[in-house]
Amino acid sequence: MAIEIERKFVVRDDSWRQSEIGSAPIEQAYFARTPQVKCRIRIFGDNAYITLKSAVGGLSRHEFEYKIPEADAVEMIREFSIEPPITKVRYDVPFKGNIWTVDVFGGANDGLVLAEIELESADQAIAFPPWIGEEVTNNPRYENSSLARTPFTTWTKGD
Amino acid sequence: MAIEIERKFVVRDDSWRQSEIGSAPIEQAYFARTPQVKCRIRIFGDNAYITLKSAVGGLSRHEFEYKIPEADAVEMIREFSIEPPITKVRYDVPFKGNIWTVDVFGGANDGLVLAEIELESADQAIAFPPWIGEEVTNNPRYENSSLARTPFTTWTKGD
Repeated sequence: MAIEIERKFVVRDDSWRQSEIGSAPIEQAYFARTPQVKCRIRIFGDNAYITLKSAVGGLSRHEFEYKIPEADAVEMIREFSIEPPITKVRYDVPFKGNIWTVDVFGGANDGLVLAEIELESADQAIAFPPWIGEEVTNNPRYENSSLARTPFTTWTKGD
Repeated sequence: MAIEIERKFVVRDDSWRQSEIGSAPIEQAYFARTPQVKCRIRIFGDNAYITLKSAVGGLSRHEFEYKIPEADAVEMIREFSIEPPITKVRYDVPFKGNIWTVDVFGGANDGLVLAEIELESADQAIAFPPWIGEEVTNNPRYENSSLARTPFTTWTKGD
């Protein structure tokens, strides 16, 4: 069990691509949501995981994650998913001593690019790269679980 | 992923106790149910598991099970359970070349004793011990998931 503290931002432009140091594709889908827990299968590169996150919102939350065989993950995504899977490519982008992750979404979320940073404490000071836009940490519709239900390409402009 | 084929019976009396060869306590709880999948945490003796079973009924069903740290299981049962956990003691009882499992339920299912046998094929012939009663393989209210929602002690006589 881990407490996860992260902040999330919209990405303003493509200039981060000059400093990315690696990437891997992600496919993930939710198989259950209750008032207590969100349940996800994720394939990240060659590795697969089952993850349970407490549904309590905010900056820090309980998370339980276990590595599982990739073949099981493929089967479970096909058999148990509530909505079509989310697909994205995750890039690692260092900036002034931190590693940012930049997620370039595909499929029904095509056009959406988000950056995340994991923190050791909620009030940790961080240096912001110039390509970082609006913070959306507490905006529920940028959560992956929301993006599965209401993908980016279905949002109406001015929302 | 495994295909699970098992038959389930009510236990008629206590005579199986003369031939039991071992037992372990089980505590388990469901953290999600969807039309596709039932999701369970189980602590069985000193081991703990997360299990996803396809919700399609019948004699055989898809099951995915992974070993997890016991401390995680305790925490997840407390934090994510839909209903109070099921508690039971599971006994191994050999009879004519097969090992039967006998579950003696406690808590809100006190008084219920069920026997199960795992088969290699749905039409496999088996020798029945004298303490085996009515078959309940296809009776949904004897499923553990049902017993969590509607425990045995709440059933009315003549149901």
